[in-house]
Amino acid sequence: MKLKKLILVTNDDGIFAPGLKALVGIAKKLGEVVVVAPNSPQSGMGHAITINQPLRIHKVQIFDDVESYECSGTPVDCVKIAKNVLFKERTIDLCISGINHGSNASINIIYSGTMSAAMEASLEKIPSIGFSLLDYSFDADFDASSHFISDLITKVLNNGLVNCRLLNVNIPKLRKKEIKGTKICVQAEGNWIEEFKEGRDPRNEVYYWLTGQFVCIDDRENTDLKALADGYISIVPSGHDLTIHTAIPDLKYLESHVE
Amino acid sequence: MKLKKLILVTNDDGIFAPGLKALVGIAKKLGEVVVVAPNSPQSGMGHAITINQPLRIHKVQIFDDVESYECSGTPVDCVKIAKNVLFKERTIDLCISGINHGSNASINIIYSGTMSAAMEASLEKIPSIGFSLLDYSFDADFDASSHFISDLITKVLNNGLVNCRLLNVNIPKLRKKEIKGTKICVQAEGNWIEEFKEGRDPRNEVYYWLTGQFVCIDDRENTDLKALADGYISIVPSGHDLTIHTAIPDLKYLESHVE
Repeated sequence: MKLKKLILVTNDDGIFAPGLKALVGIAKKLGEVVVVAPNSPQSGMGHAITINQPLRIHKVQIFDDVESYECSGTPVDCVKIAKNVLFKERTIDLCISGINHGSNASINIIYSGTMSAAMEASLEKIPSIGFSLLDYSFDADFDASSHFISDLITKVLNNGLVNCRLLNVNIPKLRKKEIKGTKICVQAEGNWIEEFKEGRDPRNEVYYWLTGQFVCIDDRENTDLKALADGYISIVPSGHDLTIHTAIPDLKYLESHVE
Repeated sequence: MKLKKLILVTNDDGIFAPGLKALVGIAKKLGEVVVVAPNSPQSGMGHAITINQPLRIHKVQIFDDVESYECSGTPVDCVKIAKNVLFKERTIDLCISGINHGSNASINIIYSGTMSAAMEASLEKIPSIGFSLLDYSFDADFDASSHFISDLITKVLNNGLVNCRLLNVNIPKLRKKEIKGTKICVQAEGNWIEEFKEGRDPRNEVYYWLTGQFVCIDDRENTDLKALADGYISIVPSGHDLTIHTAIPDLKYLESHVE
């Protein structure tokens, strides 16, 4: 008998998010699934970790036949505690995060709790995939892309990942028959044009609330944003080395040596 | 009369941190300084942003002759609100973040609020430098490296940055005469061996508290960790493109096209 592979599922929208339920539903058919997810929404948490207070984990009964835990921390905390406390004695074969409500394409990977959870798993040497659907609504249609997600997870479980351990997958907001396929892409260069809405609270104190509009400033043919605009699911192999190697020669003038 | 350049100073340890005071002290001599910093410590906040609640900013009188604001949000929020609310009508010539208490070399850049604030400024097209001292203690000696910091800020103010907009600067915990100089480096590959200390709170409920040990797994000669170990201040030109371009050819098998 072949042992089932262990798949850790997490997210940043919290353990009750429909996107998590959809991903668990897909993954259950492909391996043994365990869920460790935040007990509250953690959107925009980036790669935050909890170091100044304790974390709590509680076993919960949310998904049929799936061992599940809610965690008081951030998405990254969930992965750390899954790897180092809950499944310390077992090998996690794959970590999948999402399905996020909203895009994590282009520079949004930087702000994303969904992708940070997946990146944390990749730092722990676990192959990882973050999934995001370009639809913020609570009743977003996660079914339209389910066979693509299932196919991708199966391929990565069977073949592993070469030269990288993390995929950033974004899914266009389209009906099932409108999705054209999947494309391997590069992260598009983009920009948030931010605006803070100024308001007054009930005590007449001024507050500011972040809002903004995303602008693509990249016309390359192979970006994730281009693939999404063309009706494809984008897949960007991603890492954690932020060094700009090409900038090094020009910065040598900043070097000094004390004799 | 030559107009002074505008330098935005922020951090993640909060507006009362000694490292911020040290950085303001250095920057004051080099340009017009404004401070926008979190009103509470935000270590390990990564690139977190506040989207589900309002932000507050208050003008405070902490540093002599320096316009200063405390912000209720994360380090990234501080930069966003500085750029888009407080100094909307002015050009910020440089953003400096820190001086962080503790290392942000190697993969620690990923978790760092200090570096995320600087990265956010770089996304906003502002040249940025994050400074970190490899000393967690409250009475860390920020003076030992002050002339190097001053020199670096001056050079970047005068010459700008080429092919990158963000420098990750880490300073070894050494006495002034022991620091050997500055080196341009690549981000070292490293790893946290994590441990969660299990404890019981006063109500006898179990909690977990993150701790761990950092391990360098990179023997290249030009890494930030090597420079630091050799007594140099490390400078890594950093960006926000996480794509692993070399992995793309091997992942083409994940592509699909629906006819």
